[in-house]
Amino acid sequence: MTITSFHPPQRTLMGPGPSDVHPRITEALARPTIGHLDPEFIRMMDELKSLIQYAFKTSNRLTLPISAPGSAGMEACFANLVEEGDKVIVCINGVFGGRMKENVIRMGGTAITVESDWGRAVDPKAVEETLNTHPDAKILAFVHAETSTGARSDAKTLCELARKHNCLTIVDTVTSLAGSELEVDEWGIDAIYSGSQKCLSCVPGLSPVSFSEAAIEKIQARKTPVRSWFLDMNLIMGYWGGDGKRAYHHTAPVNQLYALHESLCLLQEEGLENSWERHKLHHQALVAGLAAMGLEMLVPEEERLAQLNAVVIPEGVNDGAVRQQLLAEYNLEIGAGLGAFAGKVWRIGLMGYAANQTNVLNCLSALESALLRQGHTFTPGEAVKAAISIYQ
Amino acid sequence: MTITSFHPPQRTLMGPGPSDVHPRITEALARPTIGHLDPEFIRMMDELKSLIQYAFKTSNRLTLPISAPGSAGMEACFANLVEEGDKVIVCINGVFGGRMKENVIRMGGTAITVESDWGRAVDPKAVEETLNTHPDAKILAFVHAETSTGARSDAKTLCELARKHNCLTIVDTVTSLAGSELEVDEWGIDAIYSGSQKCLSCVPGLSPVSFSEAAIEKIQARKTPVRSWFLDMNLIMGYWGGDGKRAYHHTAPVNQLYALHESLCLLQEEGLENSWERHKLHHQALVAGLAAMGLEMLVPEEERLAQLNAVVIPEGVNDGAVRQQLLAEYNLEIGAGLGAFAGKVWRIGLMGYAANQTNVLNCLSALESALLRQGHTFTPGEAVKAAISIYQ
Repeated sequence: MTITSFHPPQRTLMGPGPSDVHPRITEALARPTIGHLDPEFIRMMDELKSLIQYAFKTSNRLTLPISAPGSAGMEACFANLVEEGDKVIVCINGVFGGRMKENVIRMGGTAITVESDWGRAVDPKAVEETLNTHPDAKILAFVHAETSTGARSDAKTLCELARKHNCLTIVDTVTSLAGSELEVDEWGIDAIYSGSQKCLSCVPGLSPVSFSEAAIEKIQARKTPVRSWFLDMNLIMGYWGGDGKRAYHHTAPVNQLYALHESLCLLQEEGLENSWERHKLHHQALVAGLAAMGLEMLVPEEERLAQLNAVVIPEGVNDGAVRQQLLAEYNLEIGAGLGAFAGKVWRIGLMGYAANQTNVLNCLSALESALLRQGHTFTPGEAVKAAISIYQ
Repeated sequence: MTITSFHPPQRTLMGPGPSDVHPRITEALARPTIGHLDPEFIRMMDELKSLIQYAFKTSNRLTLPISAPGSAGMEACFANLVEEGDKVIVCINGVFGGRMKENVIRMGGTAITVESDWGRAVDPKAVEETLNTHPDAKILAFVHAETSTGARSDAKTLCELARKHNCLTIVDTVTSLAGSELEVDEWGIDAIYSGSQKCLSCVPGLSPVSFSEAAIEKIQARKTPVRSWFLDMNLIMGYWGGDGKRAYHHTAPVNQLYALHESLCLLQEEGLENSWERHKLHHQALVAGLAAMGLEMLVPEEERLAQLNAVVIPEGVNDGAVRQQLLAEYNLEIGAGLGAFAGKVWRIGLMGYAANQTNVLNCLSALESALLRQGHTFTPGEAVKAAISIYQ
């Protein structure tokens, strides 16, 4: 069997991520590989740290990209902060909260769960009650932007509650970074992780993380070694730490880091707050269009993420057939439902570079065509018109 | 502070990795990102699995790239195969054997070490004695190609010994894959990991791994969960497993996988055995040239790796000054010594695409110039002449 070079099709990525990659980022990715201890590379790493601090709105000195996808960033937070026997309160309102619970268990901790409805924000009252019931809890963990449902939780309030109860916080911002308001220092988040492939429009494979001084103290005071050599922040600090020395830990994914650097340059050029606003604008246009086709959103308006739109699949419409048609005829990817919502919702991403007017209008037109073929009744043309009215 | 795009210099990478990346591979890296559940992507994954099987010479069904660097591939092997209390015999003849020991400890296992001299192969007799002394050992772990010293161990013999003593094997082939003879099925290796950035000439960031049926059985029979969610092969099998379904586990590093696919296409085009031979040829030329400058190799001839050449730094020569001159004046990176060999050896890599005549001759010329400046005495011009005589 002879296998030849793989040439992927050119898609428009409006699923839950990866999102469309900015051409400047793919160009950066292909720049010449240099050594991970090269002085030029180390200069780039220093810049990268500043850029991630900018995106997270933090001055945390322990701020860096984990050399693996967001799931590894999640694991880096739990593996370092949870010690055997630690009680961790985990908020679950979708797939990724459930994954946090799994992480606590793998690290030998005890997970106390606070369940909220899928498709809704985490309920701060339920969290407060649980914090009261478990005064010995050490950590509160929650997902800021639940990628499986499109719900945004009130991270600021949840962090306040945690602080009041002497808990550190671990916050999943894989989908929120650069797409929604996020203030690490202002809100007092202790450990945060994100992903490169969502609102940063970078290729998938990296996970920016950041740790507060309180988190670093807990990591350094551990009685048992971190259950991962690869993700042990005590060791990773030696390579990324600010003391000028760069002790070899593992070979950095050099070209991916070029790409992340470029994506963060783009973010800085646009301005973080402008990026949040842009996501909001295109979200409003998309939602107006979807409503004109008679489609309903899963998440109540005040809890919706701009960058991930869970749309209820109407009765009688074939989920798979629609997504297949969009992919085959429009090269357009939208996301399927995950977990409890498989077959029940679509997840339309408007992330980073993909959050633009062309994509919104194309997606609405393509969806209109697919829904008409499925016999869903509405007035053709109204969706695009409704979206355009938002832009005017 | 405004940070602008990073433009790396064009280096020749003749250190311990990353090695020079083939232009077809950087080109593949920059191809359009598509979704990790896209049917076209899944077709590429199937091809990628076949290609990795080809490179490892295995028909193991559990063969795939871990979405992170070689250190994570190492951890994937130990995290899945070592359970609390398991006794693991770890051979240490350099930095990476020591890292294996660390991995055993992190997973709650007991590491029994067999120490061999750094710069030498693992001693099979010492291993056999230890296997005899510890009949309850479950696993034998060793490094095939020790990147810190350039020594090649006899993997075939070590695997035979392990089998005789009912031990599974975990073998580090980060530096050997595609550069030295390696036969996973023939030698009976149970768990193997490698890296993308060495003799495959791909960008750093991925770790091809493979597990035998016996290893899969041990993983599936575990009594305690794997101490990593991200690297749990029970879950990863759901995405990469051969049953036709692709259950979402984590977002694959799409573009990096394009690059790995392309690098393995190149390997298949050249032919695996031809690649081994090519590394040998350029190694011989390099060694002839180094000898003509009066330089000595660290490792005895029969235990040397072709792709990683540890050269003893002559008395009176300033390690840092030489490497800095090579980098500044020739854009040439060679490696420093690691661990016990810091300041005592250089590590000259001839890996993958970097293993070519131009690189060998350039490296010898550059080193000649640097050594002359350091006052090292030898007849100029003889090094290149000696290397050329090998090519003729």
